[in-house]
Amino acid sequence: MACKNPKQIQANDFYFGGLHIRGNTSNPYGLMVQPVTVAELPGLNTLGISMVRIDYAPWGINPPHTHPRATEILTVLEGTLEVGFVTTTPEYRLITKVLYKGDVFVFPVGLVHFQHNVGNKSAVAIGALSSQNPGVITMGNAVFGSNPRVSSEILAKAFQVEMKVVDQIKAKF
Amino acid sequence: MACKNPKQIQANDFYFGGLHIRGNTSNPYGLMVQPVTVAELPGLNTLGISMVRIDYAPWGINPPHTHPRATEILTVLEGTLEVGFVTTTPEYRLITKVLYKGDVFVFPVGLVHFQHNVGNKSAVAIGALSSQNPGVITMGNAVFGSNPRVSSEILAKAFQVEMKVVDQIKAKF
Amino acid sequence: MACKNPKQIQANDFYFGGLHIRGNTSNPYGLMVQPVTVAELPGLNTLGISMVRIDYAPWGINPPHTHPRATEILTVLEGTLEVGFVTTTPEYRLITKVLYKGDVFVFPVGLVHFQHNVGNKSAVAIGALSSQNPGVITMGNAVFGSNPRVSSEILAKAFQVEMKVVDQIKAKF
Amino acid sequence: MACKNPKQIQANDFYFGGLHIRGNTSNPYGLMVQPVTVAELPGLNTLGISMVRIDYAPWGINPPHTHPRATEILTVLEGTLEVGFVTTTPEYRLITKVLYKGDVFVFPVGLVHFQHNVGNKSAVAIGALSSQNPGVITMGNAVFGSNPRVSSEILAKAFQVEMKVVDQIKAKF
Amino acid sequence: MACKNPKQIQANDFYFGGLHIRGNTSNPYGLMVQPVTVAELPGLNTLGISMVRIDYAPWGINPPHTHPRATEILTVLEGTLEVGFVTTTPEYRLITKVLYKGDVFVFPVGLVHFQHNVGNKSAVAIGALSSQNPGVITMGNAVFGSNPRVSSEILAKAFQVEMKVVDQIKAKF
Amino acid sequence: MACKNPKQIQANDFYFGGLHIRGNTSNPYGLMVQPVTVAELPGLNTLGISMVRIDYAPWGINPPHTHPRATEILTVLEGTLEVGFVTTTPEYRLITKVLYKGDVFVFPVGLVHFQHNVGNKSAVAIGALSSQNPGVITMGNAVFGSNPRVSSEILAKAFQVEMKVVDQIKAKF
Repeated sequence: MACKNPKQIQANDFYFGGLHIRGNTSNPYGLMVQPVTVAELPGLNTLGISMVRIDYAPWGINPPHTHPRATEILTVLEGTLEVGFVTTTPEYRLITKVLYKGDVFVFPVGLVHFQHNVGNKSAVAIGALSSQNPGVITMGNAVFGSNPRVSSEILAKAFQVEMKVVDQIKAKF
Repeated sequence: MACKNPKQIQANDFYFGGLHIRGNTSNPYGLMVQPVTVAELPGLNTLGISMVRIDYAPWGINPPHTHPRATEILTVLEGTLEVGFVTTTPEYRLITKVLYKGDVFVFPVGLVHFQHNVGNKSAVAIGALSSQNPGVITMGNAVFGSNPRVSSEILAKAFQVEMKVVDQIKAKF
Repeated sequence: MACKNPKQIQANDFYFGGLHIRGNTSNPYGLMVQPVTVAELPGLNTLGISMVRIDYAPWGINPPHTHPRATEILTVLEGTLEVGFVTTTPEYRLITKVLYKGDVFVFPVGLVHFQHNVGNKSAVAIGALSSQNPGVITMGNAVFGSNPRVSSEILAKAFQVEMKVVDQIKAKF
Repeated sequence: MACKNPKQIQANDFYFGGLHIRGNTSNPYGLMVQPVTVAELPGLNTLGISMVRIDYAPWGINPPHTHPRATEILTVLEGTLEVGFVTTTPEYRLITKVLYKGDVFVFPVGLVHFQHNVGNKSAVAIGALSSQNPGVITMGNAVFGSNPRVSSEILAKAFQVEMKVVDQIKAKF
Repeated sequence: MACKNPKQIQANDFYFGGLHIRGNTSNPYGLMVQPVTVAELPGLNTLGISMVRIDYAPWGINPPHTHPRATEILTVLEGTLEVGFVTTTPEYRLITKVLYKGDVFVFPVGLVHFQHNVGNKSAVAIGALSSQNPGVITMGNAVFGSNPRVSSEILAKAFQVEMKVVDQIKAKF
Repeated sequence: MACKNPKQIQANDFYFGGLHIRGNTSNPYGLMVQPVTVAELPGLNTLGISMVRIDYAPWGINPPHTHPRATEILTVLEGTLEVGFVTTTPEYRLITKVLYKGDVFVFPVGLVHFQHNVGNKSAVAIGALSSQNPGVITMGNAVFGSNPRVSSEILAKAFQVEMKVVDQIKAKF
């Protein structure tokens, strides 16, 4: 994205509002994500950072996903979150921890990670990402829900299950 | 990794052998990957590149995976490969193509991608990656096969299936 | 800082606690800053991001300062903050805005910026910075309070005031 | 800034003249700065470096300033300069040295630094900066002379002086 | 090069064909180079990698050259290549090795390097480079064959030979 | 190179002296180069810049060379220099200009460039480079003077001359 003429920048180019608003988590994941990337806040252009608010319904999840271009640092504002990330081949270690209000955790660039609200109350987190355009790849959507779909033959082999299991999952996306 | 004293470098620090050897693809994926990263070839340290040879049995796959720190460029030496990558949220477009001998394709950094040998003969590809240590995250292993496992409760919700389906997949990793 | 052996990393390497705790703002600025950089959270090493909690007493300030190695993105959790940054020579434009709860603002890398609690209640903000070790340079301390002090002759000329004015300010640091 | 078509580049795109000309130092600082950044020499685009000539009247100063996007390396062509930079919080150490003809000194990226001609003769220095567009933030201008001004209330609190002292300094910018 | 609108990308943007085709090596070097850079494969834009196929006639050479913006990693598909690179001043060490089919070697960014087919059969190599636009500078062409030519006076002094020797070499380019 | 403990840095870590001293140009090139890189000035570590003084005897040359890891910006302090750089394949354009005192010129990263004192008096230039360790590769030394030598067979083919011409040049290095 081209840079704006510096003489024409205004405060609003560096501003985004509404991150205090509770997200609507009435969906299967019990999740709402409000990104503040260069798409929402143009002044982030070239600056290598962005922010996000995440709302979780009780027992809601932010399902396993990656950010292809960013590390994420996250702090819990409300609630209790079980969080984790998985290291790369060949170990695939799950590094996990239960976070309480005020706890901070880091998800290194490109690794699969998730959060899970392990409480009966809503949870809220604020995250920051080391890119103006970090990208989000939710495993379910990318693997089973792409447009068009990846062939069931490939996925059945990849997950070592019968094709009907794959088709069952595909149908949810 | 610390740099070697420049006066002590030798040709073998910049060398790796055996990339012509056919990989043993007698495994569920019909796949063998031989990486040449800084772990195998120390002279790559600080240089931002690595290489890989991939062997595919007939109808074998390189299952959906990501490289958290690298773009991959790949060329087909033998055989016919259906390849693809999936873009990020919200579109999750599958960008796919059938590649023949001599074709080159690019998988942008961090995106889920795969290759599928769509022929009755073995296939071979050479890839290069834009990092000395690109990392590999196979979706199946990272999501269903981590150590310890991600809880079935989370995965069932993430993939919107019953826990027994998740457990069935987990059992394969 | 050298990287830890990947096989020995643990969840606590990626964790920091206590960011929900109100800072003690009983000081001349009415300010408390709790950084979460690589010094507090070792797992940030090489990852290019860090976080901070800032507490402001009523009418407290985060005085004009820079981060020599990072852009900052900040959101208001409580209260009302007048914030601003100043562009570079020759324009030195002040880009300023009053932020309310949920507002987000960006302070580009290296620019002088400040926050001012313009309310009778405490304010709280969470910021994130695009470096594991962003550094903080408060103008007052760096210019008038260094160890040893910059000579009053230089500062009098720099600010075009009499030396006694400089000495008066120096005495506060 | 977009790149020029390589076929149309000419020697003059990589050229700037006149850096031998003495700058007019008849001003309160006794200073003249001639930058050679991408604004003056378009061929620097994407190349990560720029140059500067600095003239100092006897006892002139280059007042405390930062470059938000660059380290500076400087050599003295004529005269005697007391130079210094201040480290970040919490130490704010002043690293200072008197430089004579032929001496070289480095001011790390983003740190407050200054030069002071400590002789009865003019002084001249050549500097180089690690960015095509390093930016200059003179502390006096950015803190007390922005457009519009930062409020005196903030500055009085920041420097812990009475507002009239702040207003006195503001009036000079 | 500006980025394409992500909604309009297609598989062919990430594709290049024909790298299996033998190059015509009927030229003085006995060499044919087929690059796959961002000029040939637009989807490489911003991704920091490219590929190349190199064909060598029996006893053909890829003459001493540099890539000003990339490291190269190369593997031999067919034949036997003597390869080497030369370190920088003051040592100018030649790091050299004879490579056989399947061997991999690295040529660090910007260093002078070459390959020499030391066999009676054709040789083929696949290389990858750590830039979308690595550039190629063949020593003979850059030094003796530029347009216009570098003056013979300079080159005679540079290589410490008589001008007629220089003119003799220039005539070949 | 590991970073020094910040508490132990001293002014001398950021200092180098003697760049005003005329270099001894009694050598075949009529040239003396005094680098100020991280090897000479440790405080440059991680800072991405370095400096150099170059002395030229009347009609002396800085022979065609590259910096594998840096762009160079240069200004003429004394004398008259014909300078030039050569673009990459396939154009190999020579971009050249005669520089007088106070002129500034840029040599983009990795390109072959030279300077030639085209006057009866000594010339002096100050350059800066966009790396703490830019490296220098003089074409003559790297191509004809490496240790051990590149084989004459390769060089004869590369420059399309008889081996005896190659051997004649090799003997000078």
